[in-house]
Amino acid sequence: MPISLTQESNVDVLVIGAGPAGLMCAMALSHAGVNVRIVDRRPAKVKAGQADGIQPRIIEVFQSYGLADRLFKEAVQVHVACTDRASDVTAPTARYPFEMALHQGAIEQIFMDSMASKGVEVERPIIPTFIELSDDEAVLKDPTSHPARVVLKHLDVEDGKPDTEVVYAKFVIGCDGAHSWIRKQFDITMEGEQTDYIWGVVDLIPETDFPDIRNRCAIHSHNGSCMVIPREGDKVRLYTQLSDKDVVDAKGRVDRSKMGPDNILEVANKSLYPYTISASHEIDWWTLYIIGQRVADRYSVHERVLIAGDACHTHSPKAGQGMNASMNDTHNLAWKLAHVLRGCADISLLKTYEFERRKYAQDLINFDKKFATLFSGKPRTEDNEDGVSHEEFLEAFQAFGAFTSGIGVHYQPSAIVNTKHQSFASNLIIGQRVLPHVFIHAANFQPVEMQDLLPSDMRFKVLVFTGDTTDKTQLKSIRSLAKELAEPERFLNRFGHGRSGAVFDILSISSAKKRQSNYTDVPEILRSHWSKFLLDDGDMYKRSGGGGYEAYGIHPSGAIVVVRPDGYIGMVAPLNGLQDIDNYFASFMISSP
Amino acid sequence: MPISLTQESNVDVLVIGAGPAGLMCAMALSHAGVNVRIVDRRPAKVKAGQADGIQPRIIEVFQSYGLADRLFKEAVQVHVACTDRASDVTAPTARYPFEMALHQGAIEQIFMDSMASKGVEVERPIIPTFIELSDDEAVLKDPTSHPARVVLKHLDVEDGKPDTEVVYAKFVIGCDGAHSWIRKQFDITMEGEQTDYIWGVVDLIPETDFPDIRNRCAIHSHNGSCMVIPREGDKVRLYTQLSDKDVVDAKGRVDRSKMGPDNILEVANKSLYPYTISASHEIDWWTLYIIGQRVADRYSVHERVLIAGDACHTHSPKAGQGMNASMNDTHNLAWKLAHVLRGCADISLLKTYEFERRKYAQDLINFDKKFATLFSGKPRTEDNEDGVSHEEFLEAFQAFGAFTSGIGVHYQPSAIVNTKHQSFASNLIIGQRVLPHVFIHAANFQPVEMQDLLPSDMRFKVLVFTGDTTDKTQLKSIRSLAKELAEPERFLNRFGHGRSGAVFDILSISSAKKRQSNYTDVPEILRSHWSKFLLDDGDMYKRSGGGGYEAYGIHPSGAIVVVRPDGYIGMVAPLNGLQDIDNYFASFMISSP
Repeated sequence: MPISLTQESNVDVLVIGAGPAGLMCAMALSHAGVNVRIVDRRPAKVKAGQADGIQPRIIEVFQSYGLADRLFKEAVQVHVACTDRASDVTAPTARYPFEMALHQGAIEQIFMDSMASKGVEVERPIIPTFIELSDDEAVLKDPTSHPARVVLKHLDVEDGKPDTEVVYAKFVIGCDGAHSWIRKQFDITMEGEQTDYIWGVVDLIPETDFPDIRNRCAIHSHNGSCMVIPREGDKVRLYTQLSDKDVVDAKGRVDRSKMGPDNILEVANKSLYPYTISASHEIDWWTLYIIGQRVADRYSVHERVLIAGDACHTHSPKAGQGMNASMNDTHNLAWKLAHVLRGCADISLLKTYEFERRKYAQDLINFDKKFATLFSGKPRTEDNEDGVSHEEFLEAFQAFGAFTSGIGVHYQPSAIVNTKHQSFASNLIIGQRVLPHVFIHAANFQPVEMQDLLPSDMRFKVLVFTGDTTDKTQLKSIRSLAKELAEPERFLNRFGHGRSGAVFDILSISSAKKRQSNYTDVPEILRSHWSKFLLDDGDMYKRSGGGGYEAYGIHPSGAIVVVRPDGYIGMVAPLNGLQDIDNYFASFMISSP
Repeated sequence: MPISLTQESNVDVLVIGAGPAGLMCAMALSHAGVNVRIVDRRPAKVKAGQADGIQPRIIEVFQSYGLADRLFKEAVQVHVACTDRASDVTAPTARYPFEMALHQGAIEQIFMDSMASKGVEVERPIIPTFIELSDDEAVLKDPTSHPARVVLKHLDVEDGKPDTEVVYAKFVIGCDGAHSWIRKQFDITMEGEQTDYIWGVVDLIPETDFPDIRNRCAIHSHNGSCMVIPREGDKVRLYTQLSDKDVVDAKGRVDRSKMGPDNILEVANKSLYPYTISASHEIDWWTLYIIGQRVADRYSVHERVLIAGDACHTHSPKAGQGMNASMNDTHNLAWKLAHVLRGCADISLLKTYEFERRKYAQDLINFDKKFATLFSGKPRTEDNEDGVSHEEFLEAFQAFGAFTSGIGVHYQPSAIVNTKHQSFASNLIIGQRVLPHVFIHAANFQPVEMQDLLPSDMRFKVLVFTGDTTDKTQLKSIRSLAKELAEPERFLNRFGHGRSGAVFDILSISSAKKRQSNYTDVPEILRSHWSKFLLDDGDMYKRSGGGGYEAYGIHPSGAIVVVRPDGYIGMVAPLNGLQDIDNYFASFMISSP
């Protein structure tokens, strides 16, 4: 027998699990130039079914990584939620005011294609069999150390070849799903109710006389409840909530053989009555979801092992939030990891990951519970006055619009969310994402969406709302701001680590009108490239642009808005408030050597 | 010596020349499933420089082939034409109200990538050395015959391998440029003035204090005239018109050694004074254009050999029209060839190619002449009262907006342009392209741009403006229209050749409001798929849609609009005017067997 030498290697970030959370993480890190590996137990990616809708905020996030085009090509759009043809998404500030739906395999492929351009591929099938984390505090505090030791077992190796390897990682990200192995190794517990709901789910191309089959519908009738979610390629997904007796055997265990797509369709037909629905083609995917609503008691072990996605929160599928929340977890985490690994930010920055994302998961659970109760309750009738009225149901369905759209995510004050000067940009809510708005380039009057200037490129965006640069007094204060900005003790140099352009991206937005403006009057530090100087004015064709200062609530004297690399507003300052910006960055960044 | 066996083969369409005209032709035909080959004399595609801006109409055409995304990724947008910061494109109905600029090699690559997905590649370096066309009228009239015999010489073959082949083609398309070999073989002459203008052109990344360097500028000063065209990748193109003495030697011949990029920049600096301009990086492309403005006396030889692009019209580069006109030539030709080759249309349809495109080329020459005179003339001053005033110059620069944008192209009445019922859709001008407008899908209220429903897929689009389908009387007439449409003698079956869905695409647009509409009331022949039934109403977010009947000038009783496969309106009819539509198609289509 050949001697099986165990391979050993180092990596900066090891991602366990290549579902939406893990892939978002690896994709984002690969583009940041981080040394990352991602492994998965499945031999191939998901082919059909699984996962839910794509919410407006995550479309914005995809756009920030340059990946929204693919969604628009491949996904179906969902514009209406029935029953009364209300708008599906009650989030008036959404850039994309609709949901989309696309099967999980296609979403995963978008991430994989993007990573592949940076040389990162999912390694599979591989499972972790052992993990230990150093308990030496000095090691844990040193961001250059590799305190995690992980043994990986390759499931599909040629006979005689070694099938295990040891990986020393600076950080391990557990994105290994609801039954997370990583979570269990560190005795992280899931908190929440113990009741599991059982859902039957089927994807089909419908044959039906139900006119709203291409809209998202929550049908709540005396004969049963059912949800319709339009999908790509003329498919539709039906969700039906099942009762225990449908699927549980005499011993109280779930018996999958008692249930199949025909049974799920039967339940759906009952609730759709008098309309009927059947499958026009063979059904290629169906499942039973048996899931509770729980959240992990902690998201990290010494900020070295972190968990994300289903590994730390599980939800009923009704609001279609699971996948979105998972991707937003690692979107929140990736830039923090990148800054720590680059030596730009203190490792304590990673504490904000649990702080921000665990609260969101808890809110989501609370939302789910409220919605589930309404959805499973019987409708109110003369005989059942305790039932759920149509109005109550509709109100709940709408009230959570901002929440379910993801637009309303609001991170609370912390080292990276400083609300002190909110009044200088009263509508750019600190802790929320930047509102979409169209401005024009001063150099060629080309309209541009502000969100497109805030790519997820790991840089902090410093938006300098200069006021009217054709006003001589204002121009004078802008010039003094520019002079101050260039000083060595200011954040630009102090935290720029010798190449401030890689850490900070400065954009200036003047309220001057296009026919008067001459952007070359403004000092170069505020316009490093012609495309970095904008005007708050309409385009040449009066189709877009203008009114941005008002929409953002910018103070007449101007304002500086610091946007985190994930697109969320970190702080606001007046034009003479550089000191406060310095202090903000000093609270989590490391000074240049 | 080995015996050199000459290879012989048949092809439906042989395209000679892989510039913009030839590539548009081959790309369009490849997607139509036409058996097409394209050959070019150059060993590789153009790398830098060459060609001009991309006009609004050609952006729409790219979009119709699914290729606009690439333009938006790679090209620069040009929104303003100076000197007074007027809008660059004075065509208010343009879907994309701006120009773009991208070097010719990148544009060619877009076509090549698209063709490659259909297995068609440019074969190069190859030149035609012999061509003859049968003079047998019966052969020429038979669309299945191969009346053209072309000898191709492969310039880059291994020693001993045969370097010539004989190709028998149904159609030969000469896209072989201003010095077209094809044109010469058939003694087609170029008509027009004999004076050649000399232009110096240079692409550079500018170092300049001229604030409008990112806008399209026509600078017309006492010291010289110069044009600035922004380009992708921070480049700028400068055009300067040169005088004979700069470049012509003692014998009256052009001496390229007398001129280089430095000389061109010198002329540019004179006209930009008091601003200055220089190149911040090495100049990778410059040229002298020596060109007259001429148009071929005919575009076709028995509709079997046809010429397109620079082969039949040459222009001064000032208005940036050459490449756009060339691509529009073959966009106009491709669908006609496809229908003839499929046996759906009579070969006489090809006569409309010369009829429509030669007039356009002549109009363009006339425009060029007028513009050139203004541009080369001295400005008006007190000493020179015959000079060109600033106002005259500006007016000319703007007046031709609709023309230079390509939006104003208006094909005159012919077999495929029937203006009889214009009043039923008074703003959808018969012979012009369909105005962009947003409607919503009845099934899910998703907004959609009408132009996106008119892809260049070789199908005639039949737009049925049904009126209000919630009105019972109107619904009754719609049902009777549907019944009539299905009759065997109507165009749908008569010219559908057994698969009418491959020849015609029927879209219905109701004026019913979204909350009232039930599209399943409408007969299926008018909504072959849920996406084919639209409403003229706003989307759920009041961002787009609504007012389409008014914008298009649709008659209150409804209307049917026939759109040609190239997006131009072929005819309009009242809802009870099916007979006129039958007659329209009968004038150039062949009945199903």
